[in-house]
Amino acid sequence: MTRSLHRYLPILTWGRAYTRQTLTNDLMAAAIVTIMLIPQSLAYALLAGLPPEAGIYASIVPILLYSVLGTSRALAVGPVAVVSLMTAVAIGQVAEQGTMGYAAAALTLALMSGAMLLAMGVFRLGFLANFLSHPVIAGFITASGLLIAVSQLRHLLGVSAHGHTLVEILGALSAHVTETNLITLTLGAGAVGTLVWVRRSLKARLKALGASDGLADIATKAGPVAVVVLTTLAVWGLSLDAAGVAIVGAVPQSLPPFTIPSLSFDVLEALFLPALLISIIGFVESISVAQTLAAKKRQRIDPDQELIGLGAANIGAAFSGGYPVTGGFSRSVVNFDAGAETPAAGAFTAMGLAIAAVALTPLVYFLPKATLAATIIVAVLSLVDFSILRKTWTYSKADFWAVTATIVLTLGFGVETGVLAGVLLSVGLHLYKTSRPHVAEVGLVPGTQHFRNVLRHDVITDPSLVTLRVDESLYFVNARFLEDLVTDRIAEGCEVKHVVLMFPAVNEVDFSALESLEAINARLKDLGIGLHLSEVKGPVMDRLLRSHLVEDLNGQVFLSQYDAWRALSTSPEATAA
Amino acid sequence: MTRSLHRYLPILTWGRAYTRQTLTNDLMAAAIVTIMLIPQSLAYALLAGLPPEAGIYASIVPILLYSVLGTSRALAVGPVAVVSLMTAVAIGQVAEQGTMGYAAAALTLALMSGAMLLAMGVFRLGFLANFLSHPVIAGFITASGLLIAVSQLRHLLGVSAHGHTLVEILGALSAHVTETNLITLTLGAGAVGTLVWVRRSLKARLKALGASDGLADIATKAGPVAVVVLTTLAVWGLSLDAAGVAIVGAVPQSLPPFTIPSLSFDVLEALFLPALLISIIGFVESISVAQTLAAKKRQRIDPDQELIGLGAANIGAAFSGGYPVTGGFSRSVVNFDAGAETPAAGAFTAMGLAIAAVALTPLVYFLPKATLAATIIVAVLSLVDFSILRKTWTYSKADFWAVTATIVLTLGFGVETGVLAGVLLSVGLHLYKTSRPHVAEVGLVPGTQHFRNVLRHDVITDPSLVTLRVDESLYFVNARFLEDLVTDRIAEGCEVKHVVLMFPAVNEVDFSALESLEAINARLKDLGIGLHLSEVKGPVMDRLLRSHLVEDLNGQVFLSQYDAWRALSTSPEATAA
Repeated sequence: MTRSLHRYLPILTWGRAYTRQTLTNDLMAAAIVTIMLIPQSLAYALLAGLPPEAGIYASIVPILLYSVLGTSRALAVGPVAVVSLMTAVAIGQVAEQGTMGYAAAALTLALMSGAMLLAMGVFRLGFLANFLSHPVIAGFITASGLLIAVSQLRHLLGVSAHGHTLVEILGALSAHVTETNLITLTLGAGAVGTLVWVRRSLKARLKALGASDGLADIATKAGPVAVVVLTTLAVWGLSLDAAGVAIVGAVPQSLPPFTIPSLSFDVLEALFLPALLISIIGFVESISVAQTLAAKKRQRIDPDQELIGLGAANIGAAFSGGYPVTGGFSRSVVNFDAGAETPAAGAFTAMGLAIAAVALTPLVYFLPKATLAATIIVAVLSLVDFSILRKTWTYSKADFWAVTATIVLTLGFGVETGVLAGVLLSVGLHLYKTSRPHVAEVGLVPGTQHFRNVLRHDVITDPSLVTLRVDESLYFVNARFLEDLVTDRIAEGCEVKHVVLMFPAVNEVDFSALESLEAINARLKDLGIGLHLSEVKGPVMDRLLRSHLVEDLNGQVFLSQYDAWRALSTSPEATAA
Repeated sequence: MTRSLHRYLPILTWGRAYTRQTLTNDLMAAAIVTIMLIPQSLAYALLAGLPPEAGIYASIVPILLYSVLGTSRALAVGPVAVVSLMTAVAIGQVAEQGTMGYAAAALTLALMSGAMLLAMGVFRLGFLANFLSHPVIAGFITASGLLIAVSQLRHLLGVSAHGHTLVEILGALSAHVTETNLITLTLGAGAVGTLVWVRRSLKARLKALGASDGLADIATKAGPVAVVVLTTLAVWGLSLDAAGVAIVGAVPQSLPPFTIPSLSFDVLEALFLPALLISIIGFVESISVAQTLAAKKRQRIDPDQELIGLGAANIGAAFSGGYPVTGGFSRSVVNFDAGAETPAAGAFTAMGLAIAAVALTPLVYFLPKATLAATIIVAVLSLVDFSILRKTWTYSKADFWAVTATIVLTLGFGVETGVLAGVLLSVGLHLYKTSRPHVAEVGLVPGTQHFRNVLRHDVITDPSLVTLRVDESLYFVNARFLEDLVTDRIAEGCEVKHVVLMFPAVNEVDFSALESLEAINARLKDLGIGLHLSEVKGPVMDRLLRSHLVEDLNGQVFLSQYDAWRALSTSPEATAA
C-alpha cells in the first residue's frame, strides 16, 4: 500500500529528504526560471492565438500538479512552441481566433489531452510514444520550427497573414508585404538581431572583457528580459503604439481563474485526433528531456507515472484558463543548470508566476508583439536542424525517406498530416522490411553435422529433399511470403519428395503464420510431398501443440536438422551416416 | 523483351500450348459457370443497390481482360458478395440509391479501385495485402456475411429497411415488420429452404436413389437455377406481382454499354478510402482462391501480376456499366471443378453471359427479388464461421482480441470501420509484442566460454561488469526500451564499471536504435562507465561503421563475449584466464 502510494505520489519520496540546502537551491533555480518564463509564456500564448495571460496561467497550476505527481526532479512544465502551434491549428478548426469559443476550445483540448495522457498512464500505454521513430520526431520538430518561425514573420512586419502550411503562410505574407509597418519591422528585426547576438557572442565577449563565468552566464540569460524591457520602454516613451506598433495591451491582473472547458459533442469529436497527436508529441518531448536530465544524476524516470503527471498538469490547465502544456526543453535545462534539486523548484516557479500575474501584468501593456515574435523565432530556430537528412542518408535509406516525407508533408500540409504520415511511414517501412525475411536453402557441410546456405557454401544437397532455414519470426506480415516461397520452390523441381522448414531463429508463430503452415502442409500433401519441421524452439513448439498442425503434419518434427537429414535423405552420405 | 512481355501477358504462355482437348474442357466449364452466374450476378447487383443488368455487365468485360492479363488458370472474376456490400456502403455516402449519380459513382469506384490495383501491381506493392492478418480477414468475412444476410431479410419480407450496421438494419426491420408481404415471405422462405436442402441433402439423396455421381452433381448445381425458374413461373402464372411481390422487371436487352465514370473531385475524394479498402479486400480474397487452386496443379501465381489483372478488370468494369469486381471463391471453385484449364474458359463464360444479356433478359422479368435475396443469403451464410474465435482463443490471445474487435466493430459500425480497426489492431499488437524484446543479463558458465541467463543458470558474475544479451532486432519501437533498461540497471548498482551489450541475435539496428545507443553511450560516459559491444553480426557492424558510434564509443567492440569478459572483468576467474 505504502509502496504503491509512493509510486503514484513521488512527492512522498523526495519530500522526506528535503533539507534547508535543497530549499535554497530550489528557490534560486525558481527565481531564474520565473524571470525567463514571463516573456516566454506571453510569446507562446501569442503563437497559440490566445490572450497573453493564458500563457502565464498555463504555467501555474500545471507546474504545481506536476510537482506532486511527476517523477522528474528537474522537468519544467508549461507551454512549449510545438504544442502551442499544434493548439493553434487544432482549435482554429472549430472556432475563430479571438472569440470566446476559441479560448474555450483551448481548455477542451487541454482537458482531452490530459484525460488521454492520464488514461495512457493508468493503463501503462506509454509504449505508444515509441511508434514515433527518432528521425520522424527530428523531421517533425525541424519542420514545425520552420513553420513557427515563418508564421511569426507577420508580427515582425506588422501585417495580418495566417496559414497552416508553408505555402499558405508565404502566400499570405507576400499578399500583405506592402502593408509592412516599418517601425514594427525595425523593432522586431532589432530584437531578433540582439537576441541572436546575445545567444551567440555575448558570453565570450564578456569573458574576454574579464567578467567572471557566473556573471557572463547571468548576463546572457538576462538578455531576452533586457530586450523585452528596452522595446517596451521604447514603445511607451515614443508612443509607438499610436504609430501602428501592435502591443500586448491590457492583461487582467489576477490569479488563474477557475474555468470550465466546453464539452459539446461536436467540439470533442473534432478535437479528438488533434488531442491525441498533441498528447503523444508532448509526451515524447517531455520524456526525452526528463530522461536526459535524470540520467545525469543517476535518477529514474517512470514513463507511465510521467504520463499521469503530465495528464494531471493538462487537466489542471483546462480548469485554470490555460491550454495544453508539456515538459519544455529550454526551461527544463535552465531549471536543471540553475541547480533545481526537487520538484519543489517547480512549485516555487509557479508561485513566482502567480505573483507576476497579479502584480506585474500592467508592466507588459506596452510590450510590442514584435518582441514576442522575435523571442519565438530565435527560440524555435535552434530546433531547426536539417542535419538529420544527411545522417539518415548515410546510415539508412528507409529512415531517410521517412524523415524526408515527414518534413515535406509537415511543411506542405501542416503539422497534423506531417506527424501522422511520419508515423504511418515508419511503421509501414518496418513492416515492409520484415515482410520479406531472409530464408536460406541449406545443405550439409561435408564431414560435420552443420547445415549452411547452399548459395554461399560448398555443401551436400539432395534433389529430393529441400531444407529452408527461416531467419525471422513468422507472423501475418510475412506468413504469405513463406507460403509463396515454398510453393514456388516446389513448382521448380519435380523430384522433390520432402520439405523441411528449419526454425532455429523463429521466436514466434502467430495464428496467420500457423494457417500458412497448415496451407503449405495441405498443398504438399495433395502433391504427395512430406512437410517436416526441425529445431523448433521450446515456446514455439508449446504453442504449435495447441493447434492441429503437428497432428496433421504430413511428416515429422525433428529435434535437429541432422536427424531430419539422416531420416529423409536418400543420398549416399545419409545412408552411410 | 520477350520474357517481360510474357510476364505482363501470361496469355502468350498458355496460348501457345492450346489444344483441341483444352478447348473442349474450357467450353464445358464455361457453360456450367455461365448458368450459375446469371442468377448470381443479378443477385449481387441487387446487394450493391444497382440495377440487375450491372451484375451481368460486371461479369463480361472484366473476365475478358483478366483472361489476357491474369496468371491464374481457374480464377473467375466478377461481382462477389463482400465487395458488393462494400460498394453499396461506399456509394451510398455520395449518392441516393436508384439515382443516375449512384450508378455513376459505382463506375467511379470501379475505376479508382482498378487504378489502385494496377498501380500496386506496377510498383510491386502486393505485400500491402499482408497487413491484414488471417484472423482479421476471417472475422471480417464472417461479420460481413452476417450483415449481408440480415440486410437481405427485407427482400424476403417485402419491406423497405436499410442500414449499414447490425443495429440499424435490425431496427429498420422491426419498424417495418408489420408491413410484411406474406406472399413474398412464402416465396422467399421457400426458396431459402429449397436452396439449403439442395446444398445439404440433394446429392446424397439422389445417390441413395441410384443416380450416378456425375448426375447427382449436375442436379445439385442446377438446383439454384431450378429455384429461379420455378419462382419466376409462379409469379408469372399466378400474377403475384399484382399482389405486391417485388420483381426484377424490365432489364435492357443489350451488350455492355460504353460508360464514362464521373470524375468530380468531391466524389473522388469521398471514395478514396472505400476504393482502397475494396481493392485490398478484393485482392486478398482473389489471391487466396487463386493460390489454393494453382497449388493443386503445381502452377504459379504472381501476386504483382494478379494486381495488374484485377486492376485491368476493374477499369474494364468502370467503362462497361459494371462495378467493382474481384476473383470470387464459389465461381472459381465451380470453374476449376468443371475442368477449366486456361483463362480461355473465362473468355467463353464472358461470351455466354453476353449472349444471355442480349437474349435471355426478358425471361427474368417476373423473377422475384425474394428469390435473389434467398440466393444471396444461402451463399453468404457459408462464409459465416465463428470457429475462428475458438481457434484463436486456444492458440493466441493477441489474435483472439484482434478478431473479436474486427467482428464487433464490423457489426456495430459497418464494414469500413471494421476492417480498418482490424488492420490497426493487428499491426499495433505486433508492434507491442516487439516493443518489449527479451533481454537477458548473462554470466559465464564455469569451465566454458559460454554465457547464459543469470536468472536460469548457475553462472559466474562480476558486480563491476553488466552483460546484457538482446534477443531481438533493435528499431524505433523498442529503442527507448533498451535505453530505459540500461538506465534502470545502472541506477541499481553503484559499483558497475562496464556494460557490455551482446548482439548475436540483433539483425538490424535502425537510426532510432543507433541514437538510443549513442544516448546510452553518452549517459554512461557522464557516469564514468564503459559501454562495449560484443558478437555484432557482419551486416550490422558494416552499418554501425557508417555512423560515429563506434568511433565515440566509451569502450570497445569485442568479437566474442568471452574476449570481452577476459578484458573487462576483474574477477579471479577472468584474471586466471
